[in-house]
Amino acid sequence: MTLRGEDRLIDWLRQHTPGTRIGDDAAVLPRDSFAVTTDTQIAGVHVPPNLDPGRVARRLLAVNASDLAAMGAEPAFAFLVIAAPDGFDHRRFLHHFVRAAQAIGAELAGGDLAHSRHLVVSATLLGRQRAGSRWLRRDGARPGHRVWLGGTVGEAHLGLGVLAQGAEVKRRGLRLPPPLAAPRTLAAAARRAVRRQLLPLPQLALGRWLACHSPAGAAIDLSDSLAHDLHRLCRASDTGAEIDARRLPVPRDAKRLAATLGIDLEEALWHGGEDYVLCFTLPAECVPPDEFQCIPIGRIRNQPGIERIDSSGTHSPVPDRGFDHLIATV
Amino acid sequence: MTLRGEDRLIDWLRQHTPGTRIGDDAAVLPRDSFAVTTDTQIAGVHVPPNLDPGRVARRLLAVNASDLAAMGAEPAFAFLVIAAPDGFDHRRFLHHFVRAAQAIGAELAGGDLAHSRHLVVSATLLGRQRAGSRWLRRDGARPGHRVWLGGTVGEAHLGLGVLAQGAEVKRRGLRLPPPLAAPRTLAAAARRAVRRQLLPLPQLALGRWLACHSPAGAAIDLSDSLAHDLHRLCRASDTGAEIDARRLPVPRDAKRLAATLGIDLEEALWHGGEDYVLCFTLPAECVPPDEFQCIPIGRIRNQPGIERIDSSGTHSPVPDRGFDHLIATV
Repeated sequence: MTLRGEDRLIDWLRQHTPGTRIGDDAAVLPRDSFAVTTDTQIAGVHVPPNLDPGRVARRLLAVNASDLAAMGAEPAFAFLVIAAPDGFDHRRFLHHFVRAAQAIGAELAGGDLAHSRHLVVSATLLGRQRAGSRWLRRDGARPGHRVWLGGTVGEAHLGLGVLAQGAEVKRRGLRLPPPLAAPRTLAAAARRAVRRQLLPLPQLALGRWLACHSPAGAAIDLSDSLAHDLHRLCRASDTGAEIDARRLPVPRDAKRLAATLGIDLEEALWHGGEDYVLCFTLPAECVPPDEFQCIPIGRIRNQPGIERIDSSGTHSPVPDRGFDHLIATV
Repeated sequence: MTLRGEDRLIDWLRQHTPGTRIGDDAAVLPRDSFAVTTDTQIAGVHVPPNLDPGRVARRLLAVNASDLAAMGAEPAFAFLVIAAPDGFDHRRFLHHFVRAAQAIGAELAGGDLAHSRHLVVSATLLGRQRAGSRWLRRDGARPGHRVWLGGTVGEAHLGLGVLAQGAEVKRRGLRLPPPLAAPRTLAAAARRAVRRQLLPLPQLALGRWLACHSPAGAAIDLSDSLAHDLHRLCRASDTGAEIDARRLPVPRDAKRLAATLGIDLEEALWHGGEDYVLCFTLPAECVPPDEFQCIPIGRIRNQPGIERIDSSGTHSPVPDRGFDHLIATV
C-alpha cells in the first residue's frame, strides 16, 4: 500500500523509532508524576532563517531540556509540532530530533504536522522525578543562600552579534566575516559564541545533582538574561539578591570579541539572553561538586530587588531587563 | 513592582486562574497515566486570517480535545504555545482558552509565548483514564464489527466553501454573501456549516461512554476525512471495511447548500475534512445509547481497503484521500 504525505512520514518515523507510541490520536504514557514544559523556535526569530533543519531540531530540544534541567527532571517523552513551508526537510529535522532526544533519554511520542509560510516548531517535553530527588523550583531561595551560576553568561548574546555581522552558518562549520576571522583567538571566541547561540547545552547533570543532593534552594535556567531571570527567581521566592559583579563568569576572550562587535560586555553579561545555564541558590554550607565548575556570584537577602557590587564596593540596582518577546505587544 | 511583557501577561493569567501551576520552568503534574496529544492552528491555514482570537482559542482547544475523545480520555491539563504578531490580543485569547478548558475539566498548566509574523498557536492536551475504562485505539477493529459515526460528515467542508464565497465572520455572527443569504433554510444551513468549521464539538461524552462501556472496538476522530481516517483505522487494525453509502449521515439541507456552492456533496461526505466526529467500531451486539444519535454505516471485514456499496448494490473502492498537510511537500 502506498502511503502519502503525513502518513508516509509517520510510517518512516515508526520504522526509525521501533516501539514508538506514535499512531493513535494520542500517546498513552506510563503512570508517573511528570514535569511538563513547552518551547518554540521560529525561523527568523529564534534561529537564523534557512538554518539547517537538523540544527533547528537540536536547538528546539535543547531549550526545552534546559527547562527540565532547571526543575531537576529527567527527560522522558517529547511531543513535536512542525509547521513548515514547502520544501522543508522533515526527515532531516526528525532524524536529528529523535537522535538528540534519545541521547538525553527522551522518546518522541507524538506530534502534529502542518503547512505554514514560515517555519515554526514547538516541543512539549515531559520529565520524570528521579527516585529520592526533589523538584527544583523558583520559590526556594532564602536569605543567606548563596547564588550560583552553572557557567558563563553573555556568550550567546555575543554569538547573536557575530551572526549580525554577517557570519554564515554552513551545514558544517561557520564562515566568519573579515573583522572576526583573525587573529586566531578572536575567531575561536567568535565560533564558540555562535555555537553557544545555536546549540545551548542544557545542564541536565547539574539539575540532577541539585535535585538529588541539595537540601534546599531555588533554580531557574537563564533564557532571557541573568538580570531578568534572577529577578523572576527572587520575586517567586519573595527575596532579593546582592551580586558581586567581579565574580560574574566571563567567557574566554569575550572582552576582545565584544569590543570588535561594538557590544558593551557588561550589558551582555547582565542582560544578554539564551545562555541556558542554571542559576540557583544553596544554603551557604552546600557546595556543588567541582566537576560542574559552578561559580558563586552573590547571596540572597530579605530586601527585594537585585543590587550589584562593583570593584570599588559601590552598590547599584540591576534593572529587570532582558529579552522579552512581548514587551512591544502586550 | 511593575512587570513587563511576558511576565505581566503571566501575572494577569495567574490572577485569573487561582491555584495555577504556571510560574516555574515546568509544571509538575499529579501522578497519573496520561494520554497526550498536540495540535496546531495557523491563521490563513486552519482558520481565516484575522479571526477573533477567542474563536481561534476555542477551535484550538476543540481539535485537541477531539483527539482525547477518540482515546476515551478525560481532559486534565493543557499547555499552550502562542506565536503571534504585534497587536495580537493575548488576553482575549487566553480568557477564552481558559474558560473553554475549564468547561471540559482541563487546567491551563503552562506554555510559551513568542513573536511571529503570522499567528501560530499550538496546544498539548493531557487526558486521564476514567476509573474502570479502557483507552480507545485505532487498532481495535475486528472483522464483523459494525462501523459507526458519531454525527454527520461533510458539513465542515461545506463551511469552508461558504467562507470561500466571501462570508464574513464577525465577533458575533456571520454576514453571508447574496447567493447564500436566502432563502432562510439555505442561509441557516450555511451558518451551521460555518459554525461547524470554526468551532467543532469534540465528542467527549461519546468517547467516555465507549471507553467505559464498549467491550471492544477501535476509534478515531475524523479530522482529515471519513475516507482518509477510516483507511487509517483499518490499516492500524489490519482489516478493511464495507460502507453502505446510503447510510452516510448527511447534514440538514446540505444537498441544496452544496449545489449552491458548486461542491460535489458525495465528495464532501467522503473526503471533506475537519468534521471531528468519532468514527468507531463495535461488536454487532453492542449499540451506543440513543442520546448520542450514532449511525451505523457499515462493517469491518478481513479484506484490506474500503468499499462503498451504493443504492444499486454496486461495490466500488473508496480512495484513501482527504486533507493532508504534507502531500505537496514530503
